[in-house]
Amino acid sequence: MSPGQFREEGKKVIDWIADYYEQIEKYPVLSQVKPGEILSSLPENPPEKGEQLDVMMRDLDEKIMPGITHWQSPDFYAYFPSNTSFPSILGDLVSSGLGVQGMIWATSPAATELETRVLDWLAQMMGMPGKFKSTSSGGGVIQDTASTSALTAVIAARERATNFQANEKGIRQKLVAYISTQTHSSLEKAIKMAGIGKENLRLIDVDEEFAMRPDLLEAQIRQDKEAGFQPFFVCGALGTTSSNAMDPLRKIGEIAQKENCWFHIDGAMSGTAMLCPEFRHLMDGVELADSFVFNPHKWMFTNFDCDVFWVANRNELIKTFSILPEYLKNKATESGAVFDYRDWHVQLGRRFRALKLWFVIRHYGVEGLQFHIRKHVEMSQIFTQWVNESEEFELLVPPPLNLVCFRHKNGDEFNLKLMNTINETGKIFFTHTKLNNQVVLRMSIGQTNTELKHLEAAWKIIRETAANLQ
Amino acid sequence: MSPGQFREEGKKVIDWIADYYEQIEKYPVLSQVKPGEILSSLPENPPEKGEQLDVMMRDLDEKIMPGITHWQSPDFYAYFPSNTSFPSILGDLVSSGLGVQGMIWATSPAATELETRVLDWLAQMMGMPGKFKSTSSGGGVIQDTASTSALTAVIAARERATNFQANEKGIRQKLVAYISTQTHSSLEKAIKMAGIGKENLRLIDVDEEFAMRPDLLEAQIRQDKEAGFQPFFVCGALGTTSSNAMDPLRKIGEIAQKENCWFHIDGAMSGTAMLCPEFRHLMDGVELADSFVFNPHKWMFTNFDCDVFWVANRNELIKTFSILPEYLKNKATESGAVFDYRDWHVQLGRRFRALKLWFVIRHYGVEGLQFHIRKHVEMSQIFTQWVNESEEFELLVPPPLNLVCFRHKNGDEFNLKLMNTINETGKIFFTHTKLNNQVVLRMSIGQTNTELKHLEAAWKIIRETAANLQ
Repeated sequence: MSPGQFREEGKKVIDWIADYYEQIEKYPVLSQVKPGEILSSLPENPPEKGEQLDVMMRDLDEKIMPGITHWQSPDFYAYFPSNTSFPSILGDLVSSGLGVQGMIWATSPAATELETRVLDWLAQMMGMPGKFKSTSSGGGVIQDTASTSALTAVIAARERATNFQANEKGIRQKLVAYISTQTHSSLEKAIKMAGIGKENLRLIDVDEEFAMRPDLLEAQIRQDKEAGFQPFFVCGALGTTSSNAMDPLRKIGEIAQKENCWFHIDGAMSGTAMLCPEFRHLMDGVELADSFVFNPHKWMFTNFDCDVFWVANRNELIKTFSILPEYLKNKATESGAVFDYRDWHVQLGRRFRALKLWFVIRHYGVEGLQFHIRKHVEMSQIFTQWVNESEEFELLVPPPLNLVCFRHKNGDEFNLKLMNTINETGKIFFTHTKLNNQVVLRMSIGQTNTELKHLEAAWKIIRETAANLQ
Repeated sequence: MSPGQFREEGKKVIDWIADYYEQIEKYPVLSQVKPGEILSSLPENPPEKGEQLDVMMRDLDEKIMPGITHWQSPDFYAYFPSNTSFPSILGDLVSSGLGVQGMIWATSPAATELETRVLDWLAQMMGMPGKFKSTSSGGGVIQDTASTSALTAVIAARERATNFQANEKGIRQKLVAYISTQTHSSLEKAIKMAGIGKENLRLIDVDEEFAMRPDLLEAQIRQDKEAGFQPFFVCGALGTTSSNAMDPLRKIGEIAQKENCWFHIDGAMSGTAMLCPEFRHLMDGVELADSFVFNPHKWMFTNFDCDVFWVANRNELIKTFSILPEYLKNKATESGAVFDYRDWHVQLGRRFRALKLWFVIRHYGVEGLQFHIRKHVEMSQIFTQWVNESEEFELLVPPPLNLVCFRHKNGDEFNLKLMNTINETGKIFFTHTKLNNQVVLRMSIGQTNTELKHLEAAWKIIRETAANLQ
């Protein structure tokens, strides 16, 4: 394909995407295909000869689209959002077009330095403590997911706790880590992957709002120390996945600090709300954290993948992850004047992801981002009010931000049936969780294009379906 | 930005990329900026108000482009290629546009099933043993990088060797792993991250062609077992990074099998050559492997990131990485009839990367891909001949595929000076390594658009610069 052909074909793909967003509400939000349906529609053998783009785009429409669940539909309320925006798509397109590999500074200085700049911008935009900025002792790095960031934090914590000897000799200490019963599953996975062992992960119980109880954390640490364990890692949630519960970060952070534990804050979804000063009280105590993670690819209109991982002390991180083979040696690295981001995480290779973040921040501006976040939070409050005013539904907890947890009063089975029935219509898509061993429905309101009219229609279908099922 | 505006702005970005490729040879391949130059050209504060795309594109040209090293230039011979192609860019654009999250089957069935299909296609296209196909006991999954795949393999191996108890209790065994002195640095990093400890990684010496010596591997394993260690993991390289050395995979695999070690094959760059039957003798013994990795984002015209990780036994992998919180439970997962790829790796979230692979395979067809690979190998043979015919340069090893390792006869300092001088002209970009403690120059010939005329010009500048420096 020549640049001239790309010019032509590329514009068709742009039109295809624009058409898609113009028609997105016509698709069933949740794909209605059965297991194996897409697979069996695709040829078993690869093509010997090359094919035309038109044929591929036709197959995309006919064979792939029925198997798509439309995360970008304004009627999508499932899980957490994974929203995108047109500026983000274009920023990512430029990145694909350039095709540079930003593994170290020397392999494309702009990829490193733009990343440093936009992550410092973001720290400022979110009122983060100065120590997380590159101009101080810390800095930020773009990772793929909060799961990988959790692993990165756990491993750096492990090394700090062992004086960087676990990397060398393996794990000889009886290390123990602390999360709450509501912490995201990626933390358990990280503890396993890092060789700590699930037995050495303590799940601290939560209060009636599903936030970690610092008194129990303190007691557990005391007990572990008496039993000869070495506490090394504590994770606090700025918004849990099930119910968006807010852990008391200051109290947890103070305990972590006193006990020489690495304090990691997981704000994967809710971190974005820190763009608005009125929500920053939720991260009170953040200055006690060693690392902080949030995902612009969830609620900040930046397409997957884009996860921001800040650390307070970059030297600890780099000491943990740095490896310098001969074939990557270069003058800039040796000078010590540059960041080589491959030393800040698991991977070596790096896509130029700062571009899409730069496009998003500049397109919206701080005010534009705040406007959309506030709108989502406001809509969640409206939905909460509807639930509170209804006779048949009840609220589980008052939503601090944009996730509403509620349930029909008719019990678990009815709630699951209600959810599945509605999701199968394709009109909206939402998911469930369990809190206090009860099935709870989750309306996660954060899709880029969701307006009040969509939410009104969603509430109508929920109520009507419930009435019909009774 | 409305779909209508996106339609307009998107086409400008497509034109920008087409223009870029039309002019790519005019840029200095290696960015000539100094540390901090790009950073200081970017505003210290984020914009309060939103900005127009035109302004951002102008800044892209003026501020970012000087800091780009042009990996897609036909004059790029550094590291390993990270090549892309127009169909890949378009496939990735569709993925960005759809913005779906393929973490589990239910969140977008097509993302999972297209991935299963194209990885089975690839297995067939490369003559991989049947066990790596999804229709057998194994299967493939797209990862971001070979580093992450190495970590995945090491952790799965660790679990198999400990009867899945390291995940639960931490590492209590004296596990020991084997690579060669030439194995990629990501393996050492993986061993550290997984909690095994660098002390428990044995670097087996290599023969005169820099391939692992199986006799030394066998002796080392025997010695370790006698000392009470438990060998659990062996990595063989289908092409090392420094010199593209080919480890004797069959012999290594036989030893690994006999000793109950997980056998991982790292074919990050050279795996792509298996598309051509005439190169498959290089992976003789592949049927002994437990896992195999190669990067379409290196030499298969697929933009970063796209790493293919095949396992012989997917159940071991899933048992190692699976975690199922309530909020991700769904009927399809419970039925057991689907793959949930988040259980095949470190991350939870997943981009729809199979699309670009599908576009690339269909655009080129098997024959088209073979054509380009053969062309690159042929050009490497031509370059080798030039080196052999010259009086002032010498070849280090005969290149099995597309990486030529050579050096000027004037010694290390001269070679480094020669390389730096040429790279600073911006006309071509190539890198060095050390073999037998000598500086060696690497010409890595695999960029999508490199033609013989580019290579001729490269050889000319190398010879002329060397003559001028003497």
